[in-house]
Amino acid sequence: MKEKEFINIIKSSLKSNYIGDDCAYLKDTGIVISQDNLVENVHFSLDFTTPYKLGWKSAMVNISDICASGAEPICFTVGLSLPSYTDEDFVKEFYHGLKDAAKDIEIVGGDITGADKIFISIAAIGKTAGRKISSRKNAKIGQKIIVSGEHGSSGAGLRLLQNGKNYPEKFITAHLMPEAQIEFSRYIAENIKEDYAMMDTSDGLADALSQIACSSGVNLEIDFDKVPYDVDLKMFADFEDLILYGGEDYQLVACVPEDIAGKFTVIGTVKQGSGITIIKNSQKFNFSIHQIEKKLFNHFK
Amino acid sequence: MKEKEFINIIKSSLKSNYIGDDCAYLKDTGIVISQDNLVENVHFSLDFTTPYKLGWKSAMVNISDICASGAEPICFTVGLSLPSYTDEDFVKEFYHGLKDAAKDIEIVGGDITGADKIFISIAAIGKTAGRKISSRKNAKIGQKIIVSGEHGSSGAGLRLLQNGKNYPEKFITAHLMPEAQIEFSRYIAENIKEDYAMMDTSDGLADALSQIACSSGVNLEIDFDKVPYDVDLKMFADFEDLILYGGEDYQLVACVPEDIAGKFTVIGTVKQGSGITIIKNSQKFNFSIHQIEKKLFNHFK
Repeated sequence: MKEKEFINIIKSSLKSNYIGDDCAYLKDTGIVISQDNLVENVHFSLDFTTPYKLGWKSAMVNISDICASGAEPICFTVGLSLPSYTDEDFVKEFYHGLKDAAKDIEIVGGDITGADKIFISIAAIGKTAGRKISSRKNAKIGQKIIVSGEHGSSGAGLRLLQNGKNYPEKFITAHLMPEAQIEFSRYIAENIKEDYAMMDTSDGLADALSQIACSSGVNLEIDFDKVPYDVDLKMFADFEDLILYGGEDYQLVACVPEDIAGKFTVIGTVKQGSGITIIKNSQKFNFSIHQIEKKLFNHFK
Repeated sequence: MKEKEFINIIKSSLKSNYIGDDCAYLKDTGIVISQDNLVENVHFSLDFTTPYKLGWKSAMVNISDICASGAEPICFTVGLSLPSYTDEDFVKEFYHGLKDAAKDIEIVGGDITGADKIFISIAAIGKTAGRKISSRKNAKIGQKIIVSGEHGSSGAGLRLLQNGKNYPEKFITAHLMPEAQIEFSRYIAENIKEDYAMMDTSDGLADALSQIACSSGVNLEIDFDKVPYDVDLKMFADFEDLILYGGEDYQLVACVPEDIAGKFTVIGTVKQGSGITIIKNSQKFNFSIHQIEKKLFNHFK
């Protein structure tokens, strides 16, 4: 059973208006909240990373969720369950990495317990004052599709690590120590007037585009040649797949009006229809959400 | 290494003012937040519970943390990592239990991933408007020590389950389906004028008393005969240990002025000194926090 099928069961059990975006927006309290679980040997392996880098990435993954909503990340809590093979140094290094990534975002509490594998769950809080909050339901025909940076580097880094390589280092770093796109998020959320959709590319660019298309009832058409990526990705025969499906770049993708779009890298336009359309070598390729999902890494496999 | 030693490392890494209570109190945003991890075969076993009861208890554990702060629980997020032996029915039943326990507290989001054991991490949010928020540092000499209900029943239930028994059912229910003490918390937080300490008894009555004593720099003296418990606990030779150290009753214990204390069950008085003192059969027994901790169940053993 797949993650998205479980989510559908949860949605129909809860009948909640909040479930759907990466963050829940609590209007009355002026906050957004999100939570992410990271499980050893599912999301990371100590063969490839260090406790410091694991702490860094755990923080960034959650900061990125808050940024995707347009809110200002203010704090998080950390639930950590640790097996007997982790020690005092693991805890110190992990928190060192967390703190360096968090900068002035405060770690305010959490829980620590035993387990037989490392299990990390972080809940992050963002403040919404002075910001317009995004929803993946908000993409509108005519809006431009913009991205915050390069795609595919993290997937390339994972591929290299899995093949026992640690070079080019920039791809390894992109995978193990991503950077959440705080500035991009802040500029949009503070300056935009109309409703907009924004997501991070934790599950890949194609996934983010198709989630927005599906939730908004529109087609997202992008020009593949406009998607920014590191040219060294061409060392991989399937570099286009890494760019579209690689995931974990933690870039932001947003559908915004033209005036805001002009400040950023525009990769396409929101159109009438459904699914996503990718223009490559003057040809149009159409993908339904179902086709995109089949390409995705599935934790439940 | 023990949970509390890890917490000390985290405290010294973070130098945060927030770490210490079960909830972090974010004054600017008017909320408290807490997080708890529940790990299969550490905190629960599917040999003893059902997905519905697991959902119920997961919610109550977190609602109890918010109640311990004096805030009004308003919502939570649920991070769930599930192994391949859990199915659609597990997810449905788990959320059914969560929802029944949560009542009007909304489940607003979370995460779902794969894992090789069941990991549950819940982050709960409480609203502080109109409430005075507790801290375990706030106990003052002369205050009365009050409790919300009976102690030891949950520990008795666990003991019975571990011995292959499912009777008396009331003890099994106390262990698998505890009730958070929302009314007790609300009355105190809405009516108290002075600073006060409050904790839940998730790790046992003696632990809660000694944590408050240690954080507040006082001695907590209780009269054992005033501690409420179910008389059928006497079927266990060591029923006094179950009452003091059993844990997971999710009762509240608070140090409050006399006018508030008069509405509740008073079990003792805050005195000058350190550690806890238990009066039994007209004798006084003194325990340091170190002695109390040695009696506690240790997840890291």
